[in-house]
Amino acid sequence: MDLIVELGKRSYPIIFCDIDEAGQRLTECVKSKKFMVITDDNVEKYYLKDICRSLESQGYEVVTSVIPAGEESKTMETAKGLLQQALKYGLDRTSCIAALGGGVVGDISGFVAATYMRGIDFVQIPTTLLAQVDSSVGGKVAVNLPEAKNIVGAFHQPRAVIVDVKTLKTLPERELKTGLAEVIKYGVIRDKGFFQWLDIHMEDLLALDMEALKYAIKRSCEIKAEIVGQDETEQGLRAVLNFGHTLGHALEALTDYKKYTHGEAVAIGMVYASKIALNRKMISQQFYDEILKLIKKAGLPTVFDDFPFEEVLNKLTSDKKAYNGRIIFALVDENRNFIKAEIHPDEIKSVLY
Amino acid sequence: MDLIVELGKRSYPIIFCDIDEAGQRLTECVKSKKFMVITDDNVEKYYLKDICRSLESQGYEVVTSVIPAGEESKTMETAKGLLQQALKYGLDRTSCIAALGGGVVGDISGFVAATYMRGIDFVQIPTTLLAQVDSSVGGKVAVNLPEAKNIVGAFHQPRAVIVDVKTLKTLPERELKTGLAEVIKYGVIRDKGFFQWLDIHMEDLLALDMEALKYAIKRSCEIKAEIVGQDETEQGLRAVLNFGHTLGHALEALTDYKKYTHGEAVAIGMVYASKIALNRKMISQQFYDEILKLIKKAGLPTVFDDFPFEEVLNKLTSDKKAYNGRIIFALVDENRNFIKAEIHPDEIKSVLY
Repeated sequence: MDLIVELGKRSYPIIFCDIDEAGQRLTECVKSKKFMVITDDNVEKYYLKDICRSLESQGYEVVTSVIPAGEESKTMETAKGLLQQALKYGLDRTSCIAALGGGVVGDISGFVAATYMRGIDFVQIPTTLLAQVDSSVGGKVAVNLPEAKNIVGAFHQPRAVIVDVKTLKTLPERELKTGLAEVIKYGVIRDKGFFQWLDIHMEDLLALDMEALKYAIKRSCEIKAEIVGQDETEQGLRAVLNFGHTLGHALEALTDYKKYTHGEAVAIGMVYASKIALNRKMISQQFYDEILKLIKKAGLPTVFDDFPFEEVLNKLTSDKKAYNGRIIFALVDENRNFIKAEIHPDEIKSVLY
Repeated sequence: MDLIVELGKRSYPIIFCDIDEAGQRLTECVKSKKFMVITDDNVEKYYLKDICRSLESQGYEVVTSVIPAGEESKTMETAKGLLQQALKYGLDRTSCIAALGGGVVGDISGFVAATYMRGIDFVQIPTTLLAQVDSSVGGKVAVNLPEAKNIVGAFHQPRAVIVDVKTLKTLPERELKTGLAEVIKYGVIRDKGFFQWLDIHMEDLLALDMEALKYAIKRSCEIKAEIVGQDETEQGLRAVLNFGHTLGHALEALTDYKKYTHGEAVAIGMVYASKIALNRKMISQQFYDEILKLIKKAGLPTVFDDFPFEEVLNKLTSDKKAYNGRIIFALVDENRNFIKAEIHPDEIKSVLY
């Protein structure tokens, strides 16, 4: 069964199928006759031919564009190159861009689709766990500036998300774990039963048990879809998805995005956000211990290196979600109620050090 | 009396007032506390100090950014520089970008506002006739690629448009005339009474009679607001605003945007679109003659240089609005009914040559 992200006219399905079936399934939700598939030079090796063949088998005209793998590609310069290619390939307002890859490919392809001729259709075909459970769903697209990540972007919902769980077989283990951090997040912020399921099945997930992965991804997408459906442009509830991300982003920025993967930084961020919630008596010691235990079980870090507090604070106050220099954390209580909390630097210091 | 562009939650006023009153009037429709005013090094000399003083008098924090005047600035590179400045100045999601200037400043500032942190507020303060009657209203924002104009952009409605007619006193005459082409367009596509008023008052407009200009701008904005209110993202009716623009764009592109101003190219485009309508017996010889006469009265060109037909055709088929290489013209009949017509190359050739 597909999931649906309910956004009125902009509703779209999250389709679980083989890459070979993608073309056929897309005929249900995309009217375009021409696709530009964007991928990176890593994913290209594994799946580009398959997706092109699948699209062409349905009569679609397909052109492709390959960018270098890695966060370094998520720039306005790369976006400009892709926009120029779209023009050269003759994409018009009825064409569709397909993002085949992880978060970088999805984000930049979405930005290109959002801005080419003021917006054309696009579909996400995520091939990493992180992209499958998080970045491919919800319509947030962006590129980086040298000074800040995801600072230039748009809300541009895809027409469909195609998830082939088998693509995770080619994913490096560290990348699998980084995706698990977001999976755990959904259990913490929204669903006690799922949290307990994760505790039982974490070894299966790490061992690439396809059925377990499929369930975890579906449940994660379900939760994200429900939240995005209620608050598309993050006026309120959607900010709960930032649980663990305020400190996480600061740690990533502090280490120049080199030391931690996104999920590792978020894992540490979730631990400290939970500690703040514990100190505020919003959650029990038991829930806090369970969170810590599950993160460890996923092979993710729970503590960070000894950075001077001033440097951490500086990054926290310059976060995109900060407001007039005030630090905002997404917290949840024992019953998974979301609280958007302003945290005083002293409170952060007492928890972090 | 202000005009309102009716777009539900995104409705906004077109406010006619002195630049000195802009700050006070903006307190009614902008919640931001911080403005980044973007202008060019030409308009800067005349109005930047005034607008800053007016904003600061209301307690707004104001930062400014000046780009070189001219179409050459409307690039992704300039946009990137502005986005970096916004970040350096500490603009957050609650800040507002104000575009002070003509179409280039309005388009690129709007693009920056549409993409900075996935979209922040912006206001338009147009200082050219073309921007006051056309580009500042309707939310189309964009930058150019070397290969094509306005190809990268978004729909991002301003929170308000501030029109101070007196700014036209510093506008070069050729720029005044280019704006008059769009004013005439509104009379042709939508309002017989306005068309007749223009015929009577064209000399007043050219002589910078402030009352006449104010009326012409208001009526033009009213017509554009009504059309945009019915069709924000150009699914249908809004395309009537492209009257004269299909050939106009081709002529601009053929001459590398150097020979004709936008309005001059549109004027010629309107003549030939009218000729097609005449040949199709959609309009009378009399209406055609009146259109030609009014365009001449405004000091605008009605014929174009002798380009090889193949070159014209090539530009027409690569237009952003072309569809699978088919050429689409916006036409109107005698009763100002809009017809979106596919025009065969033979028909174009017979009219143009």
